[in-house]
Amino acid sequence: MAYNLAPLQNLIDQFERMQGIGHKTAQRMAFYILGLSDEEAESFAKAITDAHTKIKQCKICCDLADDELCPICKSGTRDKSVICVVEDPRDVAAIERTHDYDGTYHVLHGAISPMDNIGPDQIRIKELIARLGNGDVEEVIMATNPTVEGEATAMYISRLLKPMGITVSRLAYGVPVGADLEYADEITLSRAIEGRSII
Amino acid sequence: MAYNLAPLQNLIDQFERMQGIGHKTAQRMAFYILGLSDEEAESFAKAITDAHTKIKQCKICCDLADDELCPICKSGTRDKSVICVVEDPRDVAAIERTHDYDGTYHVLHGAISPMDNIGPDQIRIKELIARLGNGDVEEVIMATNPTVEGEATAMYISRLLKPMGITVSRLAYGVPVGADLEYADEITLSRAIEGRSII
Repeated sequence: MAYNLAPLQNLIDQFERMQGIGHKTAQRMAFYILGLSDEEAESFAKAITDAHTKIKQCKICCDLADDELCPICKSGTRDKSVICVVEDPRDVAAIERTHDYDGTYHVLHGAISPMDNIGPDQIRIKELIARLGNGDVEEVIMATNPTVEGEATAMYISRLLKPMGITVSRLAYGVPVGADLEYADEITLSRAIEGRSII
Repeated sequence: MAYNLAPLQNLIDQFERMQGIGHKTAQRMAFYILGLSDEEAESFAKAITDAHTKIKQCKICCDLADDELCPICKSGTRDKSVICVVEDPRDVAAIERTHDYDGTYHVLHGAISPMDNIGPDQIRIKELIARLGNGDVEEVIMATNPTVEGEATAMYISRLLKPMGITVSRLAYGVPVGADLEYADEITLSRAIEGRSII
């Protein structure tokens, strides 16, 4: 229902516009805000403005950064000869959690999807090509999502890169660790068989 | 995981502090904010400050209001001789949706709950008593939640009110309309039998 109180209704609408937030949740969130102290509400509003104004894209890898460069591109200990290409800043965070990769990243901010009118020019592909000019990069790991769009993007980029003499690799497909083989879908399973390794 | 970027992490923390919002959702919400245009982010932040500063409590019924009085207390068409006592502003909205009640409300902002250190003085009971002084009110309908705390609060208030010669009533208990009798719990069902009416 609509509240009679415009400021409250406006706040509920703002929350409801978020993906995955229904009316009930938006209402509960708005009431949470009303229940905050003045300072808390002020710092909540400030957190939104701050995050929005201070967070930019890294000039090199297009990941989120609060400076010209992101912490990974600034770092002296990361291997600059390997670039891992991902669709989204959240994917960088996911790979960083493994503590198993010490190269750099490139964030495309999307994947090629003709259905949604997203072509190669709408994502950060030319920024990636620009990084490869000086010959320092030896390998590009495609870590786009295992979806039709992610696959198409990986394919497109690898065709651009191969003539430049750069090794292009792809994350391994297979059954997720800890999963039950019985419930794995056929495509994943057949990719896992294809990609089997000698033990 | 914690992001390296303080403004982003701060925003995620702000969302995560809300009841019922987990880490993943908070993260998604923060990324939603980053994806907004400058004006959109600004108006989101403003909606929070606005709701928080403009929404007060009605001087009479303690419901939310953007003025001295709430729209219901201001209205000339509502029956001022009946007061429906609820725990929360959301309960007012729920009863208003029925379009079946034309009296006024009183919002307690909680229920007596010794476990949580909430006694009669922590909720708006004295404000209710103050409204009854001039003898205009004939009936008080207790519409607190059908929980132990809600029941205790209704009991406490009815004991205060009865000596004042005011009729105190309670919402009917029974099986919810449209529900399956088979799945009704025993207490609800026995209350429904107790409260049966002649047809």
